[in-house]
Amino acid sequence: MAPLPGIATPAVVVDLDVLERNIASMARSTQERGLSLRPHAKTHKMPQIAQRQIAAGAVGLTVATIGEAEVFVDSGTVDVFIAYPLWVDRQGAARLLALAGAARVTVGIESADGARQLARMLGTSVSRVAVRVELDSGHHRSGVPPAEAVGLARAAADAGLAVTGLFTFPGHSYGPAAASRAAADERESIREAATALRGAGFEDLELSGGSTPSASLAAGDTLTELRPGVYVFGDAQQWELGHCAPEDIALTVESTVVSRRAGAAGQADRLVLDAGSKVLGSDRAAWATGYGRLLDHPDARIVALSEHHATVEWPGPQMPPLGTRVRVVPNHVCLTVNLVDEVQVARDGVVEDRWTVAGRGRNS
Amino acid sequence: MAPLPGIATPAVVVDLDVLERNIASMARSTQERGLSLRPHAKTHKMPQIAQRQIAAGAVGLTVATIGEAEVFVDSGTVDVFIAYPLWVDRQGAARLLALAGAARVTVGIESADGARQLARMLGTSVSRVAVRVELDSGHHRSGVPPAEAVGLARAAADAGLAVTGLFTFPGHSYGPAAASRAAADERESIREAATALRGAGFEDLELSGGSTPSASLAAGDTLTELRPGVYVFGDAQQWELGHCAPEDIALTVESTVVSRRAGAAGQADRLVLDAGSKVLGSDRAAWATGYGRLLDHPDARIVALSEHHATVEWPGPQMPPLGTRVRVVPNHVCLTVNLVDEVQVARDGVVEDRWTVAGRGRNS
Repeated sequence: MAPLPGIATPAVVVDLDVLERNIASMARSTQERGLSLRPHAKTHKMPQIAQRQIAAGAVGLTVATIGEAEVFVDSGTVDVFIAYPLWVDRQGAARLLALAGAARVTVGIESADGARQLARMLGTSVSRVAVRVELDSGHHRSGVPPAEAVGLARAAADAGLAVTGLFTFPGHSYGPAAASRAAADERESIREAATALRGAGFEDLELSGGSTPSASLAAGDTLTELRPGVYVFGDAQQWELGHCAPEDIALTVESTVVSRRAGAAGQADRLVLDAGSKVLGSDRAAWATGYGRLLDHPDARIVALSEHHATVEWPGPQMPPLGTRVRVVPNHVCLTVNLVDEVQVARDGVVEDRWTVAGRGRNS
Repeated sequence: MAPLPGIATPAVVVDLDVLERNIASMARSTQERGLSLRPHAKTHKMPQIAQRQIAAGAVGLTVATIGEAEVFVDSGTVDVFIAYPLWVDRQGAARLLALAGAARVTVGIESADGARQLARMLGTSVSRVAVRVELDSGHHRSGVPPAEAVGLARAAADAGLAVTGLFTFPGHSYGPAAASRAAADERESIREAATALRGAGFEDLELSGGSTPSASLAAGDTLTELRPGVYVFGDAQQWELGHCAPEDIALTVESTVVSRRAGAAGQADRLVLDAGSKVLGSDRAAWATGYGRLLDHPDARIVALSEHHATVEWPGPQMPPLGTRVRVVPNHVCLTVNLVDEVQVARDGVVEDRWTVAGRGRNS
């Protein structure tokens, strides 16, 4: 699919064929391994995509915030897991209970204090929201070590909460050649904690893992569920880590060349595009080769990024003229989607719809 | 002003007293030097703040996109400068002309091709949009070297455009001890190009510079106008570069402690806050000490950031309990404002209003 000359740039464009292929491919891959798929909807924040994921067999959605859960339950999702160690106040509890009137609602816990606070705020409705214990499988962000899972589960159960599973995010899969180690850590942590929980009398546990880089490596003998998010679109991080090919990338930012300068002797030519950090996001991992890539020019790199300027080192032979449209692949697509109110939806090079990013900015 | 327990976190809070002090202070400082002030409104994107800047004496606004110009002209601004080398198509020209029906409109140019394209698209209305020539004063992003200013101005004039000034953004002021060198570069570039333009018959030129770091160093003997943006709020970058004090910071992200872990021997304790890159933005300059600061805990640092988690290294002595509210100072405030639909406006610790970020996401 070539750039789309008709739309004002920068514009976020979703290639519907590629999106649907990615959704089908992950659904098939998890089914083949006997794993449930509960995609993380923080990546796309769009009911139109959630509905396609559910239609392809997803058991429900993962979200990061109560606000995201509200968007998806309002649009028909009947099973949401808020994979986050919420600190719930009275207002948060009221919102959770409103959700629980329309959907099965599960929340992450990673501390006894957090679990007790949740139970206290839910009051007599404590049984209406289930919890899963978050494990730290090596990413070292939130979650308890496997050895502490039983203690936390008991504290939650003592407070009246239904403990229905374990979950972990092996975020250390995001690095060169890091996915297989992270998948092994995930598996080992889940196995250790699940064994301990079963020994303590906790049964029928959902054992949930998964990041997009590690998703293909997760095995059904240990886990019951995966929660990848980015796979629907792909992005420059997945491309650079080898977890998707350029032809699997379903979201690009259509941009215009607004400046060009020939490099001095020995220096690369440089272009400036009208897509900056306010539409791409500015995540750049230490191992990333730049602030984003160009889909149709794999040797070009975004070497500097400001709010409305992406400076591209152009590999040659000839710089495109001013006004040329190019398709930027953002480093981290979850941030890009969260920056725009709507996306252009195209098939075969023709925009056939616009979708509102209904969950945009729902951070709380 | 202490954290505000009533609101759901993360929430962007503007301290109105500090905001108004910052607006007054920059207005006074530029007036004293005989400089016009044309604040960059991409920082705040809110008509309520623009109106305060104009009331304090600003001659108009600077914006980055046609969409931002539309928001501010719709809300009463009568003089806007789009400080960006737009590549204007027919739709863009129609929008510029609609703006020109309600306001004085000036646009940046940095190439003869871009100027000719603008003139061609404006057609017989070419005189209704003025242009300023963008100079590269050392930031090396967009703009022409001073020696090329006359050639570009002539090309624009030949195409029928009114050349009314020069502008530059000395963005290389963003670095430790970099502001005075950048201000000197700005002055020298403007002086050289202005002299050449006057020699070529261009008169009555606005000579516009200014970034927040260099704003206090710009002198009225060379420039006529400044365009700082960040000064209204301040942020962790300005704090770390010494261009504002913590008490000058008017915008914070109210956050909740959702996780805490005591460090192993020799390692710092760590907290996780519920404010991640989806509300803070993820800009982190090479010289920055982290992904953001805590206003009331200057020794704490955000050492890792994901979409909904800010991991804080806590300096001691004692970690705050789970559920504690803290005020995060984002690294780059322009990105933070662009992530939320509204801000809470507080005075003396009481939320007295909410302002919609009317220009949010207006990237084109």
